[in-house]
Amino acid sequence: MTNPISLRHRYGLTLLLTLALSLSALAQTREPLPSWNDGPAKKNIVEFVQAVTDQSSKDFVKPADRIAVFDNDGTLWSEQPMYFELLFALEEVKRTAPQHPEWKTTQPFKAVLENDQKALGESGMDGILKIFGATHTGMTTEAFDDYAKTWLTQARHPRTGKPYTEMIFQPMREMLDYLRSQNFKTYIVSGGDTAFMRAFAEQVYGIPPEQVIGTTFVTAYQFKDGQPSILRTAKLAHNDDGPGKPESIDAVIGRRPILAFGNSDGDLQMLQWTAAGPGKRFMGLVHHTDAKREWAYDRQSKIGRLDKALDEAKTRGWTIVDMAAEWRRIYPFEAATPEHVQ
Amino acid sequence: MTNPISLRHRYGLTLLLTLALSLSALAQTREPLPSWNDGPAKKNIVEFVQAVTDQSSKDFVKPADRIAVFDNDGTLWSEQPMYFELLFALEEVKRTAPQHPEWKTTQPFKAVLENDQKALGESGMDGILKIFGATHTGMTTEAFDDYAKTWLTQARHPRTGKPYTEMIFQPMREMLDYLRSQNFKTYIVSGGDTAFMRAFAEQVYGIPPEQVIGTTFVTAYQFKDGQPSILRTAKLAHNDDGPGKPESIDAVIGRRPILAFGNSDGDLQMLQWTAAGPGKRFMGLVHHTDAKREWAYDRQSKIGRLDKALDEAKTRGWTIVDMAAEWRRIYPFEAATPEHVQ
Repeated sequence: MTNPISLRHRYGLTLLLTLALSLSALAQTREPLPSWNDGPAKKNIVEFVQAVTDQSSKDFVKPADRIAVFDNDGTLWSEQPMYFELLFALEEVKRTAPQHPEWKTTQPFKAVLENDQKALGESGMDGILKIFGATHTGMTTEAFDDYAKTWLTQARHPRTGKPYTEMIFQPMREMLDYLRSQNFKTYIVSGGDTAFMRAFAEQVYGIPPEQVIGTTFVTAYQFKDGQPSILRTAKLAHNDDGPGKPESIDAVIGRRPILAFGNSDGDLQMLQWTAAGPGKRFMGLVHHTDAKREWAYDRQSKIGRLDKALDEAKTRGWTIVDMAAEWRRIYPFEAATPEHVQ
Repeated sequence: MTNPISLRHRYGLTLLLTLALSLSALAQTREPLPSWNDGPAKKNIVEFVQAVTDQSSKDFVKPADRIAVFDNDGTLWSEQPMYFELLFALEEVKRTAPQHPEWKTTQPFKAVLENDQKALGESGMDGILKIFGATHTGMTTEAFDDYAKTWLTQARHPRTGKPYTEMIFQPMREMLDYLRSQNFKTYIVSGGDTAFMRAFAEQVYGIPPEQVIGTTFVTAYQFKDGQPSILRTAKLAHNDDGPGKPESIDAVIGRRPILAFGNSDGDLQMLQWTAAGPGKRFMGLVHHTDAKREWAYDRQSKIGRLDKALDEAKTRGWTIVDMAAEWRRIYPFEAATPEHVQ
């Protein structure tokens, strides 16, 4: 604003930018979601995006306010037979157990070492946080990043034999690309550990570290021998699940999203918070209905239970994505069917 | 990446964008910091920016990693006779005192009500946090935003008679603009309450809410009568001062900045953390040396003490901005002198 750009330059710049943006917009109007069938979910998404990006629409939203938030587990990638990050943590408990003899008699670690799924399930969210605390902390943030990246490179999913980072949902990745092409800012808001998700989110989803919001542990700045580092401690700072999601959205983003996508009851408050803002809004749920290509589960599932949020979505007309019917392919490594039929 | 853009469109788009960006770069090479004298600080800033943005330079940094962090109080706006946010809080203590008879006998409130500067000073950071807790919480995030904006509109600085939002440093605002024109992402990382700073940062500095990081209180999502809201509680979540700054940078941004600017010992750890990364770095301190146009203080000041960080800056060759010598004007409402002489 303080630069003495000549009028001629200013005009030339504006003209070129306008032309460039018009071409970009033109390109984006062509088939933005190729892995989606022409069903109700795709129609809702495209209609919403067109409405809020059309300057002549009453629903127009200026680019800075086009905030879109996505849960990760079960929304952007699979979460069965359990959260991938929990699989990582369980492997680490087993690997480091010799250094922790007390784990043989302490839950939830005893359950992990004895492969006791029932006891592990009964330990609930508290148990998960204890396991995360024991495996994700006591090291610097840089060491944790290396450690997570190494695991993500080497580990394979027990059913597909693929790296976990390939078990992302191709239709959702296309949706992220589509939203960004329309000047949305895409965020992850998920129960996973922020640092764990940052270890792959940029490469896999195109979402940079500062747009990844998750569960956090208290950290401690250290300065030793002239070298600073940040230590991850085992004290939970924020549990980014359920009500923790709108809380972290407010704390970190400071704007209310206009689009939110989840897949479980843990996303309900984020969807409510998004829905309660003024103007046009989009609330979506991935419904896992495809036992053949992915998994089928909802109201009774221990992982990713979808019960109250499914009822509320139906009552309020939120978009429920029937995965089996609406997605032409699930994972990037699969071929897309010309028109997927359940 | 999944859009079938024709080659012709793709080529046209690239060509136009290249032309547009070249013109933009050209415009920016003309005098980016008009309120800075041609002194050592301006030279350091411009040389740093040119080095990290020149693709042919060994110091080139890709745009996504051009993270720049700025303290707020004393770095982007004045902080005397005390932090502006504290002035806001003190006024609120007095205004709401009738509802809190216990404050008459409880510190630090007693000191506020009796204008006892000595006792208030002795209450230290704990006292400040108690005053913030009492005046900044117990309301929804939306109510607080309204309340802060109202105060910022109505309140006037005791010395200049200006709204606080006009007591920002014009040279620093030009620096923010300059950095953004070179694809830096500019953040505030400051001890002030995040929500208080968000109430003016976008309008005044061009820094959007999601790039404002500060002290936070625990919040609680509520859902009453079908309406969600987020309540600010009096429990401190994060004190964004000193070591809290690199901790919050890591938690919220997840990348190490390549440029950091502060003005007090509370910024030392943020500067150390920035300095310790690989490649070229810029660390700067605003040194308040101008008793006539602003204030002059450093090692002995209660507010914005600059002592250890000044020594470390001198030892390590960080940029120390001698406000009196280097700034042609301080505030936007002043006329710039052709060449300011102390």
